[in-house]
Amino acid sequence: MRMLLTAFFIIFVTGSAVAQDFLPSWNDGAAKTAILEFVTAVTEKGGRDYVEPAERIATFDHDGTLWVEYPMYTQVLFIFDRIKELAPQHPEWKTTQPFKALLEGDMKTVGAAGEKGILEMGMATHSGMTAAEFEQEVSNWLATTQHPKFKRLYSESIYQPQLELLAYLRANGFKTFIVSGGGIQFMRPISERNYGIPPEQVVGSSVVSEFQVKDGQPALVRQPKIDFINDKAGKPVGIYEHIGRRPILAFGNSDSDMQMIEYTMAGEGRRLGLFVHHTDAEREYAYDRKSHVGTLDKALDQADANGWIIVDMKKDWKKVFPGK
Amino acid sequence: MRMLLTAFFIIFVTGSAVAQDFLPSWNDGAAKTAILEFVTAVTEKGGRDYVEPAERIATFDHDGTLWVEYPMYTQVLFIFDRIKELAPQHPEWKTTQPFKALLEGDMKTVGAAGEKGILEMGMATHSGMTAAEFEQEVSNWLATTQHPKFKRLYSESIYQPQLELLAYLRANGFKTFIVSGGGIQFMRPISERNYGIPPEQVVGSSVVSEFQVKDGQPALVRQPKIDFINDKAGKPVGIYEHIGRRPILAFGNSDSDMQMIEYTMAGEGRRLGLFVHHTDAEREYAYDRKSHVGTLDKALDQADANGWIIVDMKKDWKKVFPGK
Repeated sequence: MRMLLTAFFIIFVTGSAVAQDFLPSWNDGAAKTAILEFVTAVTEKGGRDYVEPAERIATFDHDGTLWVEYPMYTQVLFIFDRIKELAPQHPEWKTTQPFKALLEGDMKTVGAAGEKGILEMGMATHSGMTAAEFEQEVSNWLATTQHPKFKRLYSESIYQPQLELLAYLRANGFKTFIVSGGGIQFMRPISERNYGIPPEQVVGSSVVSEFQVKDGQPALVRQPKIDFINDKAGKPVGIYEHIGRRPILAFGNSDSDMQMIEYTMAGEGRRLGLFVHHTDAEREYAYDRKSHVGTLDKALDQADANGWIIVDMKKDWKKVFPGK
Repeated sequence: MRMLLTAFFIIFVTGSAVAQDFLPSWNDGAAKTAILEFVTAVTEKGGRDYVEPAERIATFDHDGTLWVEYPMYTQVLFIFDRIKELAPQHPEWKTTQPFKALLEGDMKTVGAAGEKGILEMGMATHSGMTAAEFEQEVSNWLATTQHPKFKRLYSESIYQPQLELLAYLRANGFKTFIVSGGGIQFMRPISERNYGIPPEQVVGSSVVSEFQVKDGQPALVRQPKIDFINDKAGKPVGIYEHIGRRPILAFGNSDSDMQMIEYTMAGEGRRLGLFVHHTDAEREYAYDRKSHVGTLDKALDQADANGWIIVDMKKDWKKVFPGK
């Protein structure tokens, strides 16, 4: 009887003996503990750190935080593929760099053209069509293109532990957002299916669009002009414009996420800032300070002093991708 | 027994005998019928016009659609009040138009300065402070300033029939947004309390903001530079950038809302576009084609041909404001 009563107490009162693990792909450790303690603290009614559900805003970077970004940002590969596809309609590219180099497979010259070169090719492939046409192109590409190492679609090269975390946060009244340097309209076609995040909760970089009546139909036509770069110091700005509230949790993976996390942590009350550290050369990739994508350098140095949580992919994640 | 069974059938099966009126401040008529039929059609599972809840996006203009805009847009009155308040710190305004005229009460000269003059004064009062400071100024002003005709706070000069419509739409799985030419950060402090619309579902015009570290604290500082004008052809663009889906219902009150409603109606499947027509000089105001605010002219001419619903305030609204 005593035992029965104890079991009853444990199961129905504390719930601890049968506590469901909402983060099964996270190994026990400092990162998982920090997440669980944070969520418990901000959702405990009457508790010192309680936060109203409406204010439970969580923002996640995309590349390298929710899906693979190595060896090259997925959107850049989309740009390269589109340039090759569109080349027959652009004979001038045969003699214009960096288009010429890309079409000839001379990636060294493409690389030397740097961000400016990527931007030029980005403009050529992200504008001149309607919103609906662009969405279709992105959807087609993401539905058919595989990551060379993982042999799975890019849209399936997403991190299982993060899917669990997003669902766990939402189950606790959080509203989850993507806040990425990537193109806002490049992410929206997959955000709901991949992450359960609806398009209206995606914040990203954009080109200028214009409302035009095209073939008798009102349409939004994408222009070859940058509207907003939602990266680094642009992230808090994007959050201000799109969300209008300061997040209480922010998750990134590179120095480009520092401002978002600084802004998040500077609010009143309890806050959580986290970075994925890519330490797993076998299951994914290992890169940080000297990487050409997702550079994680200053944030590593400053994490301890600022109370940021560094999530060690190799140690903290039991599993990297969904499935098997 | 027969009667009992019939009553049972009516109440529990069709529900019609005791159907709750979700729009009690709307008089029976074409507008109310159009709304009820539309919502029924898009929510009926298996029906021809069924729309998934995620796609049930409804966008509402703000000034003149959800709250009073006459005889002058509320935000412009805020600008005027702020100029007067800030004048001691700006001796140069005593000799600079249109500031000088405003401070001297010469509204004719202020009017002659037109939109450009308002914009200049808007910049002077909407920038140079942090996001948090601006929010505080707006909140203070809205909590204390009354409309001269209605003797109620501007934040309470909101339309009861629209509050009911917003709640009715949300109860039917719609996500409701404000899409206004007004300043996005001017509306957000009151959107949740007034309309049940959270700040992240408010789309509006904006100034450029910059992320800065100010007094050791990361902050967003508002700059004296227009970022985006969310009006006329800007409204579909704002919807594309912020929401990323095309609304299935849009509600405005002036020619400035035509593009939003054209864009909404041009989507596939069943759609609803509506305009408030201010016809009630007694309970509110009567103005349309020749008004200097909320001009409703071309939209009136084109409504029938386009299937837009014109809501006649005097005839269609049983009640204008909340309370008594």
